[in-house]
Amino acid sequence: MDIEDILLEMKDTSELMVDLAYSALLYDNEEIARQVVELEQRVDDWDQEVQKKAVERAIDDKDVEKALVFIRLADSIETVADGAVEIADVVLRDIEPHPVVAAALKESDTVIATVTVPTTSPAAGKTLGEMKMASETGMWVIAIRRGDSWIYGPDENTLVEQGDLLIARGPVEGGRELRLYIEA
Amino acid sequence: MDIEDILLEMKDTSELMVDLAYSALLYDNEEIARQVVELEQRVDDWDQEVQKKAVERAIDDKDVEKALVFIRLADSIETVADGAVEIADVVLRDIEPHPVVAAALKESDTVIATVTVPTTSPAAGKTLGEMKMASETGMWVIAIRRGDSWIYGPDENTLVEQGDLLIARGPVEGGRELRLYIEA
Repeated sequence: MDIEDILLEMKDTSELMVDLAYSALLYDNEEIARQVVELEQRVDDWDQEVQKKAVERAIDDKDVEKALVFIRLADSIETVADGAVEIADVVLRDIEPHPVVAAALKESDTVIATVTVPTTSPAAGKTLGEMKMASETGMWVIAIRRGDSWIYGPDENTLVEQGDLLIARGPVEGGRELRLYIEA
Repeated sequence: MDIEDILLEMKDTSELMVDLAYSALLYDNEEIARQVVELEQRVDDWDQEVQKKAVERAIDDKDVEKALVFIRLADSIETVADGAVEIADVVLRDIEPHPVVAAALKESDTVIATVTVPTTSPAAGKTLGEMKMASETGMWVIAIRRGDSWIYGPDENTLVEQGDLLIARGPVEGGRELRLYIEA
């Protein structure tokens, strides 16, 4: 990947991490907090990769300033990701849950839910559009984790596979319906 | 404000800062980058405030653990905000613009635009709903700065006043239409 492509991946990942970290906090959801912690490794690796490629490119084009901009940018994005991880750590490290934080911060009518697609799921092998999940359950899939890779902002053409971890947002009652629908 | 309310404000502000910082970067927009830098002061102040109130509350309720959770949480949110400021700094500190970064990162069809509502604007004194701006220009107002205060996620009932700085997102051609509409 080019430096620019890596930076774009880093941007998308850090935005997802912040989104997930606050969701984990608001709904006291340790599963989502763990996803945030795991995502950090990717951002760290990309940060190293940008540094390496930026210096290599500078050797070619002699543009020191540009190399430093790339490096600063990658470090800045990593700081955003670090903040997300710190928030996730608050969720994970609490010996007892602190419902006062969650209750006070909780937005009135939205939840975030995770569900893993079982082998037997009617959803496996369908696109999100074919599943009509958004219209049936009110839940929008914001990200899909597939093994070690992630799909951010999937759309109606995104194919769902068995084993996928779906992260979805929607109305309070949608979380249960999502599970019924996917695990049916 | 209670600690919980401050944390909610910090969360919303930090999310806006990340959003604005990446927008400033993608569109090489120094005005938006400056807004990010200014917002940091609020997050810093709130962080201090949470620390103070958390210790005060601990004196009352003797719950050391809860106080530390509040303090860790505020610090974590501040780290997210710091990352946003670092990104904004990349935009502001560049001696020459680095269109290669902006061009590579730019999403295909969306822009972010800022416009200050002049005294003579037909928009002043109207709600966003009455202005029909979203349907006329395709631009959605994501935040409004009014003097030293901010309105995040305004809705159709939000009143626009002269002097407001509107930050809006939408299709490429919408930025110019927004300006024509607001500054008419």
